[in-house]
Amino acid sequence: MISEKIKIIAFDADDTLWVNEPYYRETEKKFCRLMEGYLPEEQTMEELLSIEISNIDLFGYGAKGFTLSMIETAIRISKSDIQSEIIEKIIVLGKELIEKPIELLDDIVPVLSKLKQDFKLILATKGDLLDQERKLRKSGLSDYFDHIEIMSDKKESNYIYLIRKLGIKAEEFLMIGNSVKSDVLPIIAIGGQAIHVPYHITWQHEEVDNLDMFQYLTINKLSDLIAISV
Amino acid sequence: MISEKIKIIAFDADDTLWVNEPYYRETEKKFCRLMEGYLPEEQTMEELLSIEISNIDLFGYGAKGFTLSMIETAIRISKSDIQSEIIEKIIVLGKELIEKPIELLDDIVPVLSKLKQDFKLILATKGDLLDQERKLRKSGLSDYFDHIEIMSDKKESNYIYLIRKLGIKAEEFLMIGNSVKSDVLPIIAIGGQAIHVPYHITWQHEEVDNLDMFQYLTINKLSDLIAISV
Repeated sequence: MISEKIKIIAFDADDTLWVNEPYYRETEKKFCRLMEGYLPEEQTMEELLSIEISNIDLFGYGAKGFTLSMIETAIRISKSDIQSEIIEKIIVLGKELIEKPIELLDDIVPVLSKLKQDFKLILATKGDLLDQERKLRKSGLSDYFDHIEIMSDKKESNYIYLIRKLGIKAEEFLMIGNSVKSDVLPIIAIGGQAIHVPYHITWQHEEVDNLDMFQYLTINKLSDLIAISV
Repeated sequence: MISEKIKIIAFDADDTLWVNEPYYRETEKKFCRLMEGYLPEEQTMEELLSIEISNIDLFGYGAKGFTLSMIETAIRISKSDIQSEIIEKIIVLGKELIEKPIELLDDIVPVLSKLKQDFKLILATKGDLLDQERKLRKSGLSDYFDHIEIMSDKKESNYIYLIRKLGIKAEEFLMIGNSVKSDVLPIIAIGGQAIHVPYHITWQHEEVDNLDMFQYLTINKLSDLIAISV
């Protein structure tokens, strides 16, 4: 049951409403193939992740920062001896990633249609402003949402700011998303409610250990929301 | 005189509240020096601008897209024969640009303090979400603004969306900024009011010709607002 207190339901976007992480994985695979003269895939992946994480405070989330991190990784693992052609191919990979089609996850439309009858729905997504606006436009889902919040990060302070702006109390806010780290834990910490809808792929940087002390509902698929919303 | 109709005054940020374009110019100069073995400064600048403009739909505005465009330019003008060390230096230039200090333009604080007594003030800035949030935090000006709008672009449609969200009419909205193209013309076109405060440097892509048909007020410096607000 969705609690009667809830006034606004916020949905995460990437890997909650539409496919995202698989496109990043596909790009990483192609990047690793470009690097295979220098390092095996697994080590290239480790280097890339470490550079991405070290750049996150500066670059934030999204395809442009990811592309810059791939270029930096290529330079590092080639010991500053990478060919321009490879850098050129990395830029093309980055542009292709930005232009990926939007593929909605199963049953999104009926779920949003049903919930919209009883709740105010908003989109609360993390990442690059232009990329996220473009994805939403391509998704055709804009009309389901009363408010779109594109956040530079999903920490407690970002959610406190959002909930204040929405003019409701934390306990009236329900967040639904695929990332325990970004969509569930910070919300619980500030007194809101959250439902986890796992996606089959999670970026390593979004993974969390030691969840035993936290209580939240996990559902298998978004359409399970309909059963608990009545 | 600021019209009595005005309910909300929106300020642009980069080069209206704080220094921005000079940092880009400085970075471009350094980039041109890295390229001087291939092309003289003027031609490097032309190539860079043309690549930036061709990438804007995909990358939007901000330092990360600018850095990727510099890398692409370096590859193009070297005919795919650029050394990794130079790409590495370009990435460092991009990171330094993101980390530039915030230098407020003259008299910003007294102007905002004065206007805040009579109007609701908001910030309406174009660019990268994380970069703009970081700049605002570093500026110490957050408390002057009731609302912060970071926009992926400043076209008429973006302003219509913003004004609707603010719950006012276009004629109750006054925009103040240094870019005729982004801060003045789209606002006039949708029935709002705008005041132009020129800055001594404008990015070429923001320049507009044939302004004779448009009517708007230009002031020399932001503090002139105080005189016309009483």
